[in-house]
Amino acid sequence: METVALVQALRRVPAEPVTAPHPLPGFARSTVDGYAVRAADTYGVSEGLPGYLTVAGAVRMGAEPDVTVAPGTAVAMPTGGVLPPGADAVVMIEYTAEAMPGTIEVVRPVAPGEGVVRADEDAAAGGEIIPGGRPLRPQDLGMLAAAGVTSVRVHARPIATIFSTGDEVVAPETETLKPGQVRDATAAALAALVTDAGGSPVPGGIIADDPGALEKALRDALPASDMIVISAGSSVGIRDETAGAVARLGPPGIWCHGLAIKPGKPTLLAECAGVPVIGLPGNPRSALVVFRLIGMPLVRLVGGCTQPPPEATTRARLARDLASATGRLDVVQVRLSDGVATPVFGLSALLSVLTVADGYIVIPEEATGQDAGSEVEVTLYR
Amino acid sequence: METVALVQALRRVPAEPVTAPHPLPGFARSTVDGYAVRAADTYGVSEGLPGYLTVAGAVRMGAEPDVTVAPGTAVAMPTGGVLPPGADAVVMIEYTAEAMPGTIEVVRPVAPGEGVVRADEDAAAGGEIIPGGRPLRPQDLGMLAAAGVTSVRVHARPIATIFSTGDEVVAPETETLKPGQVRDATAAALAALVTDAGGSPVPGGIIADDPGALEKALRDALPASDMIVISAGSSVGIRDETAGAVARLGPPGIWCHGLAIKPGKPTLLAECAGVPVIGLPGNPRSALVVFRLIGMPLVRLVGGCTQPPPEATTRARLARDLASATGRLDVVQVRLSDGVATPVFGLSALLSVLTVADGYIVIPEEATGQDAGSEVEVTLYR
Repeated sequence: METVALVQALRRVPAEPVTAPHPLPGFARSTVDGYAVRAADTYGVSEGLPGYLTVAGAVRMGAEPDVTVAPGTAVAMPTGGVLPPGADAVVMIEYTAEAMPGTIEVVRPVAPGEGVVRADEDAAAGGEIIPGGRPLRPQDLGMLAAAGVTSVRVHARPIATIFSTGDEVVAPETETLKPGQVRDATAAALAALVTDAGGSPVPGGIIADDPGALEKALRDALPASDMIVISAGSSVGIRDETAGAVARLGPPGIWCHGLAIKPGKPTLLAECAGVPVIGLPGNPRSALVVFRLIGMPLVRLVGGCTQPPPEATTRARLARDLASATGRLDVVQVRLSDGVATPVFGLSALLSVLTVADGYIVIPEEATGQDAGSEVEVTLYR
Repeated sequence: METVALVQALRRVPAEPVTAPHPLPGFARSTVDGYAVRAADTYGVSEGLPGYLTVAGAVRMGAEPDVTVAPGTAVAMPTGGVLPPGADAVVMIEYTAEAMPGTIEVVRPVAPGEGVVRADEDAAAGGEIIPGGRPLRPQDLGMLAAAGVTSVRVHARPIATIFSTGDEVVAPETETLKPGQVRDATAAALAALVTDAGGSPVPGGIIADDPGALEKALRDALPASDMIVISAGSSVGIRDETAGAVARLGPPGIWCHGLAIKPGKPTLLAECAGVPVIGLPGNPRSALVVFRLIGMPLVRLVGGCTQPPPEATTRARLARDLASATGRLDVVQVRLSDGVATPVFGLSALLSVLTVADGYIVIPEEATGQDAGSEVEVTLYR
């Protein structure tokens, strides 16, 4: 938990519901330009038979009224002004006219409460104005400002330490690659996904394919991490070494190793000394697909977010048949144009499949595929 | 324009397309664990009639191969390893077995290129990897990192100076309100919406209902602003004063005053000395509705964003009839539950209508309303 100023609070997750310290708006307020009246004084008036009221004064914005509305009188009101004592409604200026200096005629009746917002209509004192667990939206900040709540107790951003492994992996800053080397694409993208889910990404760096080195790096990172993410090597041996290093970190250990998701099969989920650990496939594309499906919800969970923001989705017609194996969740990248979703195919080693995609569709485990022309739900990248 | 480091570039808008300085991955790479071979050496092999190849060596991750694949030989490959000279395919380890030390049998043929990603398959040298004008997504950062592009030229965030006006408006920090005073709810929420649209909000402060003061404040803000946003008073007189102050700022002046939107009618759009100016209704709720519809697209436009991120939307059944006047766009706040959208009614002065809403529906100008049970598109808040 931590306390943040309102200007820093967008998308932060309130630790508990926020209540209004006092009623809002705090005073009965006119919602129109017009005249504060006693509603009873307008009963039965019409265009043909106007009522006449003496103007007793005017209310100024932001000031306490210095006049009272007595029977037979009216007080000029700006929108947002304080309803003066004695009045119970405001008649819109459009339904009044100056009959003679100091007297108006009223051509439409008003009911009590008309043209007025009650003192506690936006919020009652002590009433909940913002729920806990839902990331703060722009309008929520407005409501907090209105209530004078200028700092909020929020869940700390979960710290996700991100490791990359592999003898071939070098930092993105590396200008010239030696044969066989690749720059670390995954860590930068994962950091962005962690941020999007409300977490705080911490770079753990690139670890060589050496179980001892990985185990030490993980062990060192555990105390300061709420979550550990490893993009592990793609080859079988390296994957086994990652699993071994994670298993030795401490109980309860590995939850599962291997998911029925394509791409993303070689995913490792574990918990070591209370810290969730996700071992992702070595291919950047597979790693990002799995992290969206499993890692981001986990970041939100650890970050106290019980009402995740909605995904951007759209329905579209599939441009071609898609095969899928039963018992496996298939995540297919698509481009969208005029309501048609065209699958982007390519090896799971290709990151360009993700950068040209507008979104993805998920073919559930029980399906054997999806026919061309069928309607699919596309989750859109943003 | 400015140049930002990759770690700061999420959602920033590239000023121009980014191209790959060199091909990616940069070398022909194995996509599987197995053996690099000459495809021709595997033609016709089967479970019943395996082919036999001599293992000439092994490729290590991240290192240049020190062996060549000659006819009749194979080289052990990890996923992601460099394809050695002479080889044109990689056969998966699952389709091989050790026949005797130093010799493998191969039970499935491979075609040239199988099990291999080409040196320029993810990106060609000089090819566009990221388009200009589209805010950078997590996977885009990954692609840039892979290409060694660690800083990006992006459009500067448009600076939107935000003013609140009204004698009754006081800062959110104000602990005790005097009668008739309200805290400034709009500025905090508008700043968040500007941020969401990729802009940089600058607080202009609260200006009293005095056209001279407003004009001076606007004039002072013009040189350092890419856009000016004013939440103007709701009452007619104040609105006219705001329009007057804006008109005096300079040509070309006011584009329009009054929009056929509910809530949001008293909206002012202007351009003064090249800077767009939006005058919003005084009610916080109306101001936020209009700013979402008109202000955020304008922030994006000024910020060079030509491919705005998709909105989160969903289709739902309307819980009750909605009336709407023809010739006016109606924005109706709704709560969502089990696919049913229930309108949240309340005066436009009430901010709580927005904080309890899950999203909104727009009833177009030409419609006279929407029937209960009809399907509507809900734009979701996030």
